[in-house]
Order: sequence, then structure tokens, then C-alpha cells
Amino acid sequence: MKQYIYGKNPIMEALKGASVYKIYMLNGHKDQKIFDLCKRNQIPLEFVDKKEFDKKVGKVVHQGVMAYIENYRYYSIDEILNSIQPEKQPLLLMLDGLEDPHNLGAILRTCDAIGVDGVIIGKNRSVGLNATVAKVSTGAIHHVKVAQVTNLTRTLEDLKKKSFWIVGCELENSQDYRSVDYNMPTVLVIGSEGFGMSRLVKKSCDINVVLPMEGHVNSLNASVAASVLLYQVYNSRHPL
Amino acid sequence: MKQYIYGKNPIMEALKGASVYKIYMLNGHKDQKIFDLCKRNQIPLEFVDKKEFDKKVGKVVHQGVMAYIENYRYYSIDEILNSIQPEKQPLLLMLDGLEDPHNLGAILRTCDAIGVDGVIIGKNRSVGLNATVAKVSTGAIHHVKVAQVTNLTRTLEDLKKKSFWIVGCELENSQDYRSVDYNMPTVLVIGSEGFGMSRLVKKSCDINVVLPMEGHVNSLNASVAASVLLYQVYNSRHPL
Repeated sequence: MKQYIYGKNPIMEALKGASVYKIYMLNGHKDQKIFDLCKRNQIPLEFVDKKEFDKKVGKVVHQGVMAYIENYRYYSIDEILNSIQPEKQPLLLMLDGLEDPHNLGAILRTCDAIGVDGVIIGKNRSVGLNATVAKVSTGAIHHVKVAQVTNLTRTLEDLKKKSFWIVGCELENSQDYRSVDYNMPTVLVIGSEGFGMSRLVKKSCDINVVLPMEGHVNSLNASVAASVLLYQVYNSRHPL
Repeated sequence: MKQYIYGKNPIMEALKGASVYKIYMLNGHKDQKIFDLCKRNQIPLEFVDKKEFDKKVGKVVHQGVMAYIENYRYYSIDEILNSIQPEKQPLLLMLDGLEDPHNLGAILRTCDAIGVDGVIIGKNRSVGLNATVAKVSTGAIHHVKVAQVTNLTRTLEDLKKKSFWIVGCELENSQDYRSVDYNMPTVLVIGSEGFGMSRLVKKSCDINVVLPMEGHVNSLNASVAASVLLYQVYNSRHPL
């Protein structure tokens, strides 16, 4: 499936990784880097007017450039597992019901930064990979492998059999996130923005961790919570 | 100055702290908690139709409730400093040119969670406190003190004289963020989404810290970076 994406950074990153069929620039716009990459990769470049932009991507901050690309590719769990280098301690992130594309985009940036091997999302009631996620991810979408599965619980049970530990971010029966040594094959599970993890996913977790919170609000933004936890995993595995 | 806010959580929080003049509910909507709080605080409640919502707050996810409240109050730096308990190690967060209200809202949640004493933002080219920030902050906006200053550099110089250390998040001449002991009066400085810190603010920093990043993208989402650093400060001050 093909689709349009927009914005300079996402397109620069797509030009490095994804299949780009065509670049569209707003009349009068210049971008030497994109010109060069188009030339080198033999991608057709067309100048169009604002109307054409509105028609193809709607009223968004497109920075005068859009691209027609192969739809973001999902990976299977096996593809993700097989791509992990044998000497690396595997790290997967499961997002249970995440809805906001801004959160998913921000999370993919962090995943790229600390070397998450794959992100697992559900097929239903979850945001998938799309142009907004790509834009917010500033290109990380092309580097982080994402799997979309129909049954998150079954996927967790399968991963347990492959000796993964399931660490959920959850208030009940939980311990401080800093008290866990993440030097084990780990699946970190983050729930949805409004409701946390679903009941069955919660039951599959081996360990629950919580971030200390001393103020009035009782939860953090989902991309913030995921990222603080992911950096703690990184810290556990790469101590100073 | 008065303004409209919307969404259940922000209004519940406003009802606890801010001056609320009136609550508007969508015809047919029910919310016993809000009814009770209105009654207890003697705030008038009016049922209106969708048109009235569109007129007052635009097409947003208002969850059937909006409120007319006193505009978000800014504090002076002195008010913030005077409100810090003598036994507490002060912690301030400066946001240099942050533009996205979603980022500011998410950051205020983290600030509330780990006990930041005040947030400092610039008067120009920065997002200020508004209804979107309030909504995303899930009410933290009513608990975290925010100061708006005309000159960030001068503010930093003043704070240095009051024995604050200025820690900037910056790639150049920087050290791993985990190598600093934040048990000192600290101002953490985060730059804008696109351009980082401005030149003069950068020059005012005593220490530069950086988050390790091993992937392809070269920066994190601003609210993510701020939050990972703030939790590190928390960890420094409240070790396990």
C-alpha cells in the first residue's frame, strides 16, 4: 500500500530507507539536500501548487514538501526476533491501546535512541503507523521495527516461552522502576493514555514497576513514562 | 483575564484550585462529581447545546464540559523562590523557546510528579499557559508555578548569584546526564524543539549534559528529554 507523507525530516529519512516513488515540492521551494537525494536515487521530483498539497495531505505543516512512498512496513515478531544480534540482550516494547500518534512518534524516537529491537502494537483500538507518526518520529519510523498483532496476550505468552520477562508499567502490586535489573530479555509494556493496560495483558506481566510521583496528578504522559522507563533499562545495561 | 477551558480532568483540577466563574455542560450530559463540586463551591452550572461549545472553545475534545475561569496565573521568580521550603533542595526548569503546547502540558505533569519548584519560560517566541496546555497537563497547570520572564539570560545570571547551578541540555562539551550529582540548587535548561538553546542562554550554563543516543535520530522529543532529566535529578536526590 502506498501513501503520502510530508515534512522535511520525515522525507529526508524516508529517502535513506523507504521506497520513495515521487517527491512533490511547493512551487518556488528549494531544498538542495532533497534535490541531491532525488538525483542520486533517481526519484522523480515535481513542483505543484498549494491546492495539490491540500488535496493530497490536507491542511498540515508540510514545509513545502511531500512524498509518495510505500506504506510503512510492519514486521512479524519472528522477523524482529531473528534480527537481534546474538550478543545483544533483547528489548521489546509493547504498547497496549496507545491512541495518540504524537505519543507513538515520540516513543519511536526514544526507541531508536536507546536501541529497542522492536515495538509491538495491537491491531485494534491502537494508533498504527501513519504520516503523523512519521513526522513526529523525525524519521525514527524507518529505523525501529514495529509489529502489529491481533492478540497481545498470546504474543506475551509466546515471548515468555522464549524466556522473555514481561515488565508492566502499573500502579498495583508494583515496585520502584529503579529496583529492577533489566539485564534480561525484556518486554516492557505500557498501557493506553486513559486506561492503562487491559486486564489480560496485566495478568501476563511478571513484574510491575511504577515511577515515583509525589505531586497531585496521578499519571504521566504515555510517551514520557515509556521513555523514562526505557532510559532506565538502558542505564541498567550500560551503567556509567 | 478570564478564559474558557474544557475537558473533565482539567475542570476537576480547576475546581480544586483556580477561580471558576461558571461551568457549562452539554445538554443531556451528567457528571455527579462536577455537580457536587459546583454545589459545594457555589458555582453556577448551565446546560448548553453543541453550537455554544463550538462558539466558545472550537471543535475540540471537550468531553461535554467547559468552564469559564480566571486566566492561568504566572508567578514572579521571587514568589517561586520564597515558596520553596527551607529544607528542600531547590529545582527550577527553564524552557528556552519551547513552542508546542502538548510538550509544555506533558512537562508540567512531570514537574508536578517529581516536585519541581517552578518553571521559567520566555515572554517571546514561546508557548504560554493556555487551554490546550491545561488539558494536556491533566490539571498539573494548577499546581506547578510558572514564571514568564522577558530576559532568560538575565534571569539565569540572577539565579547564579543566588547560588543556583545552571545545567543545560546540550550536545557540545557535555557529559552523560547520569554523571552529575544534582544535590545542589539546580536550574535545568531545555531548548526549543527545533533549535535547542539560544546562544546567550547556552553561554550561561555551568554544566552541559546529554542523553546517550545510539540510533539514527539525533534528538528526542522535548518533553521526553526534559522528563528523563528531571527523573534523573529526582534519582540523584532520592536514591533507592
